[in-house]
Amino acid sequence: MLIVKKFGGTSVANKERIFNVAKRCIEDYKKGHQVVVVLSAMGKQTDVLLDMAKDINPKASKRELDMLLTTGEQTSVALMAMAMDALGVPAVSLNAFQVAMHTTSVYGNSRLKRIDTERIHAELENRKIVVITGFQGINKFDDYTTLGRGGSDTTAVALAAALHADACEIYTDVDGVYTADPRVVKNARKLSAITYDEMLDLATLGAGVLHNRSVEMAKKYGVQLVVRSSLNNSEGTVVKEEVKMEKMLVSGVAVDKNVARIAVIGLQDQPGVAFKLFNHLANHNINVDVILQSVGRDGTKDITFSVTADDCDEAVEIVKRHGEGSLKCQSIDVEKNVAKVSIVGAGMMTNPGVAAKMFEALYDENINIKLIATSEIRVTVIVDLKDVERAANAVHEKFQLGE
Amino acid sequence: MLIVKKFGGTSVANKERIFNVAKRCIEDYKKGHQVVVVLSAMGKQTDVLLDMAKDINPKASKRELDMLLTTGEQTSVALMAMAMDALGVPAVSLNAFQVAMHTTSVYGNSRLKRIDTERIHAELENRKIVVITGFQGINKFDDYTTLGRGGSDTTAVALAAALHADACEIYTDVDGVYTADPRVVKNARKLSAITYDEMLDLATLGAGVLHNRSVEMAKKYGVQLVVRSSLNNSEGTVVKEEVKMEKMLVSGVAVDKNVARIAVIGLQDQPGVAFKLFNHLANHNINVDVILQSVGRDGTKDITFSVTADDCDEAVEIVKRHGEGSLKCQSIDVEKNVAKVSIVGAGMMTNPGVAAKMFEALYDENINIKLIATSEIRVTVIVDLKDVERAANAVHEKFQLGE
Repeated sequence: MLIVKKFGGTSVANKERIFNVAKRCIEDYKKGHQVVVVLSAMGKQTDVLLDMAKDINPKASKRELDMLLTTGEQTSVALMAMAMDALGVPAVSLNAFQVAMHTTSVYGNSRLKRIDTERIHAELENRKIVVITGFQGINKFDDYTTLGRGGSDTTAVALAAALHADACEIYTDVDGVYTADPRVVKNARKLSAITYDEMLDLATLGAGVLHNRSVEMAKKYGVQLVVRSSLNNSEGTVVKEEVKMEKMLVSGVAVDKNVARIAVIGLQDQPGVAFKLFNHLANHNINVDVILQSVGRDGTKDITFSVTADDCDEAVEIVKRHGEGSLKCQSIDVEKNVAKVSIVGAGMMTNPGVAAKMFEALYDENINIKLIATSEIRVTVIVDLKDVERAANAVHEKFQLGE
Repeated sequence: MLIVKKFGGTSVANKERIFNVAKRCIEDYKKGHQVVVVLSAMGKQTDVLLDMAKDINPKASKRELDMLLTTGEQTSVALMAMAMDALGVPAVSLNAFQVAMHTTSVYGNSRLKRIDTERIHAELENRKIVVITGFQGINKFDDYTTLGRGGSDTTAVALAAALHADACEIYTDVDGVYTADPRVVKNARKLSAITYDEMLDLATLGAGVLHNRSVEMAKKYGVQLVVRSSLNNSEGTVVKEEVKMEKMLVSGVAVDKNVARIAVIGLQDQPGVAFKLFNHLANHNINVDVILQSVGRDGTKDITFSVTADDCDEAVEIVKRHGEGSLKCQSIDVEKNVAKVSIVGAGMMTNPGVAAKMFEALYDENINIKLIATSEIRVTVIVDLKDVERAANAVHEKFQLGE
């Protein structure tokens, strides 16, 4: 078997952890498997490098930032190869040039285009463990690029696809995907399997064990993922196309507290109003999440949407500026102490009663719903921040996710 | 003009120094010159990385050590490009892959074979300052290699040769090459010029402002070097083929205190004895410096040689082992508290009285000479450690080097 294993920065933060990871990889190697390991930079090294750069030049070019940041993963992979060697197993570290990992031209947030597999296969044939830098690539100018947030996950999935790996294991500090955040919902249960789409929705909703882009890529290339803990040997959660058998209506409950709700009230009811509003926000790089448009009084309409709490003040500022100008709204209403609760499940698509059941759970707990949005496989509500944990637990129990 | 400027680790050890270097480079850039900058890793970063490696695996492979160490220079060049950018001058950093710098295959102590100049010229044509990682290269396997001690100097000289640069400036923490170590000889004088051969002998003799390999390469390709201080704007010393005009008999006095003298007495006078002795030492990586063979008593011969003080005990151990066995010597005599004093000068070649003049200076000071060795352009004596400063001053004065 050819196995791709990805470990994040926390898993290689110091000598002891490096050796832990080395030992886990060697276990598989000794079973006769071919092992490819993808690593992030050690601990907070990426932040340390970013701080160094900021100190020298707060507006450093992304090209030079990538040149700087890529040293982080190169350090990890070299030390890991040394650790494996110390444990008596031959290993070789490779960076983006050596593989090579070809990406789009853009710096700081590049996308993988093509991975050469010749060198990796040759090293595997020589019975070496191949340790590869995550997060980084090279572009057509022969410059380093980085893949943005969650980049190392994406590297691992892309490698698994390119190498036709039999397994792609993503090691994190949690031991799998849960029906809800165990810190919020006491009897949250680890899922043995989940579909790509469910995982995508969970990632978007802030239960992000895996980054969206890596899940999207896994889905596109049919790479079956396993999310496992780097700290223990438990089974983890499989992410794949079809979750057979005991397919549940709802897979999990996600909570996101980094939310603010903004209502733009009394907009003129004419074409292009929504476009203009959200275009202004997009131009300032503000991500809008749930959007709801409703009919207002006297031929006007109201548009309510949520943003991350961090973006709230800037969003309000922008809406005010344009609301008083071209958009001509009557008032703006902002609520900061709110949170999102979502249920996600591929089974929902064919099961109309799911949303109602969620609302019932909240009603039973006397929790007021401020905004509702649904997609094919999820239902999201916005509630008061103070109610969110109660809401998550109520919903979790209603769907009997803990059993 | 195309100028290659090389700065060592001390010169880029922190933010302030990085900006100092950036400013010096920008001065030349603003005069319309094309500027290529070669950097070492920041401060003690290479040692920090070596310690990390040693902690993980004391016997780490040289291949992985090079993979680790090359992150040091990459960090320097990225930060330097950011600093120049912050000062309003476009700069681009390049590592060994990006240039590319082709070396021999060996890790840890590789030799440069070929430098591609296409990318560098293209960036220079775009009016960018090009900041290049010193010390590192890539081999035919597409692996990082490092050039060993003094590697960044070698990178700078090789780049100057490949780019047909008009100048190659090596910045150090001293402001040039002196007639003697100013800490030892009070009225030591900075030389305005020195020949490659003199510089080579000075480097070998422990007055190493420049590493031997870089001087050898400069000589081979006719690259004129300037050794300058990164701390002030003084003129520095030019290293070139012919030093015209006021060509001096003696250019400088070098002192080396890291010396021990070993005499192997009463060896059988037969072929192969010297070969065997020094072959045993070479097999243990012990560098032998001055060698003297003299006729001993009763058809035997004595061989006396010097090694660095650090290697002394091991060397004695090896000589004893073989001296009692195959070499059959009568006794071994070791003196640790000795030092080397050398005079160097291209003018010596055609001037037979130079050595005698040196011995006279030492005789006048009543300093006993323990060993003498000469080459075409130098005379080296070994004296008691306690006498060395007096000896250096006496010789310096005898040749009127301070004037």
